[in-house]
Amino acid sequence: MSSHRHHSRPAPDPQAAVDFQSWLEQQRGRVESALDHWLPREEEPPQIIHRAMRYSVFAGGKRIRPILCLAAAEAVASEAPGVMEAACALEMVHTYSLIHDDLPALDNDDFRRGRPTCHKQFGEAIAILAGDALLTLAFHVLARAECPAPETRARLVEELSTAAGTPGGMIAGQVEDLEGEGKAPTPELLESIHRAKTGALLTAAVRMGAICGNAPPEPLEALTRYGRHVGLAFQIVDDLLDVEQSTETLGKTAGKDAKQKKITFPAVYGLPASHRMAEQEISAALREIEGFGERARRLREMALLVLHRSR
Amino acid sequence: MSSHRHHSRPAPDPQAAVDFQSWLEQQRGRVESALDHWLPREEEPPQIIHRAMRYSVFAGGKRIRPILCLAAAEAVASEAPGVMEAACALEMVHTYSLIHDDLPALDNDDFRRGRPTCHKQFGEAIAILAGDALLTLAFHVLARAECPAPETRARLVEELSTAAGTPGGMIAGQVEDLEGEGKAPTPELLESIHRAKTGALLTAAVRMGAICGNAPPEPLEALTRYGRHVGLAFQIVDDLLDVEQSTETLGKTAGKDAKQKKITFPAVYGLPASHRMAEQEISAALREIEGFGERARRLREMALLVLHRSR
Repeated sequence: MSSHRHHSRPAPDPQAAVDFQSWLEQQRGRVESALDHWLPREEEPPQIIHRAMRYSVFAGGKRIRPILCLAAAEAVASEAPGVMEAACALEMVHTYSLIHDDLPALDNDDFRRGRPTCHKQFGEAIAILAGDALLTLAFHVLARAECPAPETRARLVEELSTAAGTPGGMIAGQVEDLEGEGKAPTPELLESIHRAKTGALLTAAVRMGAICGNAPPEPLEALTRYGRHVGLAFQIVDDLLDVEQSTETLGKTAGKDAKQKKITFPAVYGLPASHRMAEQEISAALREIEGFGERARRLREMALLVLHRSR
Repeated sequence: MSSHRHHSRPAPDPQAAVDFQSWLEQQRGRVESALDHWLPREEEPPQIIHRAMRYSVFAGGKRIRPILCLAAAEAVASEAPGVMEAACALEMVHTYSLIHDDLPALDNDDFRRGRPTCHKQFGEAIAILAGDALLTLAFHVLARAECPAPETRARLVEELSTAAGTPGGMIAGQVEDLEGEGKAPTPELLESIHRAKTGALLTAAVRMGAICGNAPPEPLEALTRYGRHVGLAFQIVDDLLDVEQSTETLGKTAGKDAKQKKITFPAVYGLPASHRMAEQEISAALREIEGFGERARRLREMALLVLHRSR
């Protein structure tokens, strides 16, 4: 959004903000107890892998993907059976991708969310296998979701595997990101990396929620476009935070992108333009869901949260 | 089987052996063209990950799991829609597990099937991601399988994710195997490792074929027991080959188990008893499918192949 449009908006309602915060906390709590339900117990052998899975899943993540999924379901239906399983599967895939991304052979990160990364805590072998196990469990949870139509379960598996895989999905984005280090940072390469690397899974989060809510084709398409805009904004903000925040606030090493010569929005466009682009993407996302009225309230709030988050 | 029972068997029919070999080649060809269909093209960007996936999938594997899946379907039905997708998914999961198992942090193997392992050829980062991508694609293929009942697709995802995951599945077995190195090699630990590490996926291969063929509960249970026996025999033979074969014949480093102090059947029971145990497991497998008559012919031949393989 331009700063003009920003100022012409009604003043934020403090009651609404409190209400959103408490809704957010409530959803986090619901997601976390569902994750706890699906993850193997720590006492169950082989204990070390179950401890590693839980260590990374319960490391204080923001749960943006599962909560986007829940909010999308809410935007299309009052009941969406299977949506909590979809939410858990998304968070498991996200967590596995962080565990593998942090490995010495990839980004070689020692800290994540303020704690030692999985391989620092449990060793590389267990970290690799814990990531594998979370990816496997994500599909298991979807297959066992309580959707009335078994068709929906298969469709959720298809959505998640497309978004997480290659070509076009998260793994493709990670590869392009690795391959891109040190390459000329063109706008095309930048967008292609980030649409795949973070955008695909965030978009899948919105779509999977809508699918559980049985969304007809047109609203599903509008929500898909919303997801793409939010996904791109999310990555721009991520790149900005890496430049502008301290390691302490981020809970992971700040300033790494520049050191690794990653292709980022600030590197290609500079800071002010990157801020503007993030705002524009969020405006575009909000326009896509105008037609949903009050039901899309949480999706609106989530889009603004993505823009204004500080970690 | 005891050597007495072995000798009392009718002399092998040379025509049947030729026929089995040509059937086996035909099934391998079918599986490989289906794999080729589902794997991303090498030309598609990011090329390196698709090259790595294909390098490992088309490294000359024996295709035991997919062919067991096809044979199990044949034992229960003349038509089994979705069985080829199930077969491909099994081979993708098997290949991913080899890629990750060979990594420096795990078994640290430089050769597999006579060629450099995936990380030796493409680097560790790409090998980790290629494994991740194959695991993800396996579930994608199942979700898109041409089963008449969408229920079947979800059930196949459930079967595969249970067999590949933890607790009780392949990942649990790999962890127990890693943790077991140097531990006292008890029969209980040995069996627990191998039931999970190789047995679960081989049993899933048989079950998934039977599920595609719409097997009723009782035949499915008999085939499950067949799968468990074949799975255990497979691992005993694997352990024996590591001791008795040359690196050249195996296509991977021989004698590694002893060097790594792995808990193996020869280490626990000695060579002669391990040979006898493998034969007993195959006899038990054959007994489970007696009631299937001529339809289970390929399953019988596959069980004997597992026993007599040389790599």
